[in-house]
Order: sequence, then C-alpha cells, then structure tokens
Amino acid sequence: MDEQRYSETLIEGRNAVLEAFRAGKTVDKLYVLKDCKDGPVRSILREAEKGGTIVNFVDKERLDHMSTTGKHQGVIAQTAAYDYADVDDILKIAEEKGEPPFLILLDGIEDPHNLGAMIRTANLVGAHGVIIPKHRAVGLTATVAKTSAGALNYTPVAKVTNLTQTMEDLKKKGIWFVCADMSGDVMYRTNLTGPIGLVIGNEGSGVSRLVKEHCDYTASIPMKGDIDSLNASVAMGVLAYEILRQRMGGK
Amino acid sequence: MDEQRYSETLIEGRNAVLEAFRAGKTVDKLYVLKDCKDGPVRSILREAEKGGTIVNFVDKERLDHMSTTGKHQGVIAQTAAYDYADVDDILKIAEEKGEPPFLILLDGIEDPHNLGAMIRTANLVGAHGVIIPKHRAVGLTATVAKTSAGALNYTPVAKVTNLTQTMEDLKKKGIWFVCADMSGDVMYRTNLTGPIGLVIGNEGSGVSRLVKEHCDYTASIPMKGDIDSLNASVAMGVLAYEILRQRMGGK
Repeated sequence: MDEQRYSETLIEGRNAVLEAFRAGKTVDKLYVLKDCKDGPVRSILREAEKGGTIVNFVDKERLDHMSTTGKHQGVIAQTAAYDYADVDDILKIAEEKGEPPFLILLDGIEDPHNLGAMIRTANLVGAHGVIIPKHRAVGLTATVAKTSAGALNYTPVAKVTNLTQTMEDLKKKGIWFVCADMSGDVMYRTNLTGPIGLVIGNEGSGVSRLVKEHCDYTASIPMKGDIDSLNASVAMGVLAYEILRQRMGGK
Repeated sequence: MDEQRYSETLIEGRNAVLEAFRAGKTVDKLYVLKDCKDGPVRSILREAEKGGTIVNFVDKERLDHMSTTGKHQGVIAQTAAYDYADVDDILKIAEEKGEPPFLILLDGIEDPHNLGAMIRTANLVGAHGVIIPKHRAVGLTATVAKTSAGALNYTPVAKVTNLTQTMEDLKKKGIWFVCADMSGDVMYRTNLTGPIGLVIGNEGSGVSRLVKEHCDYTASIPMKGDIDSLNASVAMGVLAYEILRQRMGGK
C-alpha cells in the first residue's frame, strides 16, 4: 500500500490537474507552458492561486523532459507523496499525549534525503510534528517518503507560507523557539525543556536571518574538530536528542 | 589539491598495478580476469597476498565495464582515495593531545555516504580516529572523501583484517568498547567516560554477533516513536555526542 502512495507524484494534462485541485489534493508545484493562457489553463491557475500553489512558467522542452506520459498538454502538477497536516493537528497530538509540544521547524532543507532522515529522527525522538516552509525547500516527495523509513506514516508534516508568522502564532500558545546556530550557547548549558520548537536551517546557509530573529534563544553543538559543520541530518539528530535528554530529566 | 586526490581510484593494466603495489599504495580491491595465470599476473597476485588485498576473479565483461581506459589487460586495482592509517597512529594522536583515546569502530558500513558522514562526525566530536574492517564494508572511496566534507584530511581511518582481534589488542591497552544496540541500557545511564571505542553496526543488520560479544557493554538510544531505527549516520552522531557530553563532565 505504501508503495502505491510513493509512486504517483506527477499529474499531467489539463483535466487531470484540474481534477486534482478540485479534489483537494495538495499540489506542491505547478508547471505551466509559458504564454499559454486559454480557458482551461486559466481555470487551473485560479485553483493554484486559491491554494497558494507555486506556479512555474516553463518552456515546452522542460515539460517534455519532466513528462512521463508524453501527454502533458502544457500542464504538469507535482503533488505531495503524502498529505500535509495543519499546525493545529500537530498541537492536538501533543495535547492528546499530555506532553508539552515538541516541534521541529526546518528552514529551507533542500536535499530530500536530509528531509527524510530528519522526519525519521523527529518520529523517534518523540517530536509531535515537523513544520516546513512552502518556498525554497523540498516538499514531501517520493524520495523523502522513502528516506523517512516509514516515519511519514506517523509523524505529521505541516507546510506553511510564512515560517516567522507561524512562529509568532505559536509563541502566543506558549511555545519557545531554539535556533541551531554555531554562535549559540552550548546545548548542554541551555534549558531546552517545556513547549519547544527546534529550528534547523538550510544545509549550506543555516537558519535565515529573519527566522533567527524570531527565535528565543540559540543553542550550539560543541565542535571539537577541524572542519566547519556536521551533516544537516546529523546536527538535527544531535540537537533533537539533547532536547529529549532534558525532557527525560537528564537520564 | 584535494580534487586530485579524489580523482584516481582505479589503476588499470599489469605494469601500473604492479607498480602501485611496489610503491606501497593501498589497494582496496584487486580485480583479475578469471583463469588468467601468466607470469605478470602471478607477480601481482603475490603482491596482493603480501598486503592482504582482497582479490576478485571476474569475467572479461565485468572488467570491460569497470575500465575507464579500455586497457586493463585483465587487471584493475581499486585504490583508496585516501591513505589508511595504523591503529597505533590513532592512539598516538590521543596521547599527544593528552586525552583518553576515543575511537569509532564501524562494523560493516556499506553506504559511502554514511561512512563519509560518520568520519565527518568523528572529526567534530573529537574522536581520535576511525577503524573499519577490510571485508564486507566500503573503503575510502572518492564518494566517502567528498561526503566527509574535508574530515578525511584530519581524522585518520585505519582498516583492519579482523575487527575483534583489534578490539582484544586495544583492550590490553585499557580501552573499553561500547556497542550501539537497541537492547542496551539507555546511553544517558551508561558511563561512557574514559578510554573508549564506540562500535556502530551495519545499516541493516546492526553490529555482528561476534563483534558484539567482544564489547564490554551496550548502550541504546531512547526511541520514543513508531518506527524501528534511526538513519545509521544519525544514530552514530547521537551516540558519539553523548560520549562527548559525558567527557565534558555533562556540560
């Protein structure tokens, strides 16, 4: 059954894409033939706008290359291999478990293998869900689903338009945000208990300035070696487990 | 300069391969045309035996497929992208730093990306070196070097024929071995200070029975989720950082 859920991530052709939107399917990205503005395409673009889907206008060569059926009719929709959750769904899970919320916010992860590994870790460390931004980040593709080793079946992932706005909303609900950053206090000396959101940045550039400004504190992983940084999935795992250690009362 | 070190990992042709052996180059694996037993090939096989190199007798199609020059003459040697260190070199580094040895033993890692990420983590967590087995494991290939993000320039990796024999030798020098295993005590409650070797197992099957029997204790990562296991590189990172935390006196 899982295999089937992994398989179809591209929907091609005008009717199929319009149907997908109207059925409420989450379209991650929409590819439309440049300068194509006839009726059916305009309907699709309206649906995309309603759902806040990112639209890419591309040339015919690009569409032909992406197409697996050869019948794209100028429109290809990339859908999530898994459905996204709402942030409120995630909070509800924490509430039902009677635990202070433990969220993982991923600010711009680009590599699907990293995102998959992080969702896998999020599941095992007992986080209640993962929040990713709509723009400049990989979504729940088939590769992410596979790399998550099944964790996507259990750990909800919410996709939000504006990460800092989501953080401000969550702060009103008592959640604190800790940003993974080399300049922060060593994580062992930072109080990471209570309702918390761990913010992990992009593989190359780290947490963006704006998101960092919305964090309540920063925590760093001790670096005893010669090189600059850990692999992003490893860094996320080390920090997330330090949060768990402190949640467990340090033992 | 690093780029150059990455590039040449296959040596082809009888003279070139024989030269490589005689120059003391580390040959990871030797591929020889099946039933080929003339003088030059016998000389190469003798050198391979001396150095304990693994020899694979393969058919012509396989050699043709591997060959990048088209002139393999029935012999292709796969050399390490980086030179291996001795276990004693690793101990010497610990001694020079005035630190109790901290070793990472990888029992059969097959994915070069995992091995690279683990060497990267080993460097940053302050481990003095990594020990890998000769058989049934990936060596220091170009992919490993790249994935290590430069860590291979600093963190020595030793390759040994018999991992359990190496562990017994190291035990005589006062080093204790902790095995990563789900059945062990939670790592936070295990004393991981002092001269230590952290043993991480294969991605799928974990630490082999024999190696596990030679460990002094086992430690587990708490699992609060629904799925079975962390990504191997993440698990290694979480355990290695728990060792560092305890070495730092827990702060």
